[in-house]
Amino acid sequence: MPLTTNNPTRKSWLNVPNNSDFPIQNIPFGVFLTKEDVITIGTRIGDYAIDLGALQQLNYFEGIDLTDDMFMQDTLNDFISDGKKTWRLVRNRIGDIFDSNNPKLRDNPEHREIVIFKMEDVEMQLPVLIGDYTDFYSSKEHATNVGKMFRDPANALLPNWLHIPVGYHGRSSTIIPSGIPIHRPMGQTLPNGETTPVFGPSRLVDFELETAFITTDANIMGENIPVNEAEEYIFGMVLLNDWSARDIQKWEYVPLGPFLAKNFASSISPWIVTMDALEPFRCKGPNQEPMPLPYLQQKGKHAFDINLEVYIEPENVAPSLVSKSNFKYMYWSMSQQLAHHTSNGCRINSGDMMGSGTISGPTPDSFGSMLELTWGGKNPIVMNDGSERKFINDNDTVTMKGFCKNSSVRIGFGEVSTKLLPPFVRK
Amino acid sequence: MPLTTNNPTRKSWLNVPNNSDFPIQNIPFGVFLTKEDVITIGTRIGDYAIDLGALQQLNYFEGIDLTDDMFMQDTLNDFISDGKKTWRLVRNRIGDIFDSNNPKLRDNPEHREIVIFKMEDVEMQLPVLIGDYTDFYSSKEHATNVGKMFRDPANALLPNWLHIPVGYHGRSSTIIPSGIPIHRPMGQTLPNGETTPVFGPSRLVDFELETAFITTDANIMGENIPVNEAEEYIFGMVLLNDWSARDIQKWEYVPLGPFLAKNFASSISPWIVTMDALEPFRCKGPNQEPMPLPYLQQKGKHAFDINLEVYIEPENVAPSLVSKSNFKYMYWSMSQQLAHHTSNGCRINSGDMMGSGTISGPTPDSFGSMLELTWGGKNPIVMNDGSERKFINDNDTVTMKGFCKNSSVRIGFGEVSTKLLPPFVRK
Repeated sequence: MPLTTNNPTRKSWLNVPNNSDFPIQNIPFGVFLTKEDVITIGTRIGDYAIDLGALQQLNYFEGIDLTDDMFMQDTLNDFISDGKKTWRLVRNRIGDIFDSNNPKLRDNPEHREIVIFKMEDVEMQLPVLIGDYTDFYSSKEHATNVGKMFRDPANALLPNWLHIPVGYHGRSSTIIPSGIPIHRPMGQTLPNGETTPVFGPSRLVDFELETAFITTDANIMGENIPVNEAEEYIFGMVLLNDWSARDIQKWEYVPLGPFLAKNFASSISPWIVTMDALEPFRCKGPNQEPMPLPYLQQKGKHAFDINLEVYIEPENVAPSLVSKSNFKYMYWSMSQQLAHHTSNGCRINSGDMMGSGTISGPTPDSFGSMLELTWGGKNPIVMNDGSERKFINDNDTVTMKGFCKNSSVRIGFGEVSTKLLPPFVRK
Repeated sequence: MPLTTNNPTRKSWLNVPNNSDFPIQNIPFGVFLTKEDVITIGTRIGDYAIDLGALQQLNYFEGIDLTDDMFMQDTLNDFISDGKKTWRLVRNRIGDIFDSNNPKLRDNPEHREIVIFKMEDVEMQLPVLIGDYTDFYSSKEHATNVGKMFRDPANALLPNWLHIPVGYHGRSSTIIPSGIPIHRPMGQTLPNGETTPVFGPSRLVDFELETAFITTDANIMGENIPVNEAEEYIFGMVLLNDWSARDIQKWEYVPLGPFLAKNFASSISPWIVTMDALEPFRCKGPNQEPMPLPYLQQKGKHAFDINLEVYIEPENVAPSLVSKSNFKYMYWSMSQQLAHHTSNGCRINSGDMMGSGTISGPTPDSFGSMLELTWGGKNPIVMNDGSERKFINDNDTVTMKGFCKNSSVRIGFGEVSTKLLPPFVRK
């Protein structure tokens, strides 16, 4: 099936601002709440949210095999379960409906009134019910930085790192969409030089710049997904801020890994950008040496050229750009991650989310966490009001942006933006 | 509200075999499938499965505030969300309905026909949709055994262990009910003395003897649950076999914890035994020294005296009892685990599952895994056909049983039983 929606010369009859992340070539999927308290599945063009439930009711998806209430739901899980063929048919159809040459909806003010909302008039929700959340650790630069700081600078990478896309399980219940503030977590930490821990607010709250991919039902329990088929089961991607409390993490994580240091919050951008929309930005990933074991070997291009930015915005102060990175730096590809994850027969469901791990680039201004950017707090970053940040302060807002760009089109994720409130105090 | 259902002198008009785990004082909750392909929520008395959906339709729950289809569902999540008061009203009512002195259902053959099934005629399902699965590591004996084997025998416990109920996130998608066979997992391991890993079937598949508790909606994100309120949010318990591949675990688990070594399967017993049913078996847990930090301090009895047994049954060979342990040995209580889990504001939902961690007792015959029972394979266990086991062989069935017993009543879990099939081979 041709990806007609990716045609870079196509224009929409809806206004798309210059440099928008959401031209008619994007067509991401999300879930939003209207002012009338209606929840629906939608897409976005320019600064308009489009109600796909209403479009379906008005018969705009005629000829595509969909259940009657496919888009009148509060999660995308069922749609994602329908598989890649259906995703493409729907995305192509949406492209057609909003093509500047198609008068059907364009010239029907009554339908437009029902279908189209201003972005400022809707509230974005979590796009999927996330059954299981896995976080990988697939940036060689990040793993090396962490190893240098906390372990042996001469042997920064652990012995398994070049052989395994290392990952661990995260908490689904605290994944939130952009815009929801969080509290600085309380927790147990061991003060430097002490042998008895204390309980109190984390002093070292950090962001982690990540992307994540959303899967469809991929296998039955006990069966693996071969690496060369894995991309068939990836619906799309979001930006992910995997909030971390470094002091809690340090005290708790040996031997079973991070737990309370991570599970107080993970924020994602609300629009899932499909792999089809990202296809023009496919590129070669880093050279893998030593060669991975056969079940992880793949040919062709499996990285994606996605520009990433992180901003810190203190209250009432203009935001500062603190990191510029790129998803293409990731050592392990998403298909290798998924093949590894299922190599033991682990079942993957529609709506599962898999994080990349912190995405650090090769230069110090491309590191994906404050831990690395300030090198453990040694080199604070100066904000626009002259204040310094070693980690994130109360009432700071952390915003991540992501976009792909070539000479003819820009496809973006919008942003994931989260304010860190002071610790919760029981009244 | 009195726990009338716990009255040990009460008898049911349904036959309950001697030594049954399911007298009228138990009244566990589960989900089963009938031969007519109907899924319903149910309970069990003796060897009978009782259709609570049918009981509700026939008005036996009149006067209790329940949504119309409360029990005509394929998971218990909504019922659990209704909270402790409703659980008690329903459990007490079921006790009344089946009390030997109550003729209402007893003497209505038409209703009995609709409501009561033989256990052999139903197929037990997962009782809840498990949103998040957390596994703790709360047996001091187990943590000490593992530390002695793999780290420093003189300092077997890690520095954080006596201060934190250490836990980590597991995988929900591969939690299965008793009776579903699993495949020996494939995976990446590092052969002894080598520097290059290999991929193949795990050679060291092990069980872990655990219990798990199921929570109700407990908090809003960002808020904690005080340790002295935590028991209000625990619905009940099941037996858990947390399958583990020791060779995969050894190679993958540093630094982010176990992943593929655990997430190929976790088996649970299908009936959730309520905390109310377990109340008579509450007992004092081990002395905690050093004293935990204030947010983990609690008074009173928070352990439960639950006998646990593990059997290995090679194909066509009588099962061997390989371990006898008890839940009362756990160092950290379930309420401490839940208070710790939410101390950072982590959200707990209805249907979340929290495993105890391997339950090892003080003596070598009470250890909760083959790793410990055979001390890393050094002391194999002999089966009834003379064959030896260091770990679990293909086609072995591992069965765990659990029950509480005092002079007047026995309350049990039934069993969790799982056959280990050879590795999956793609055709």
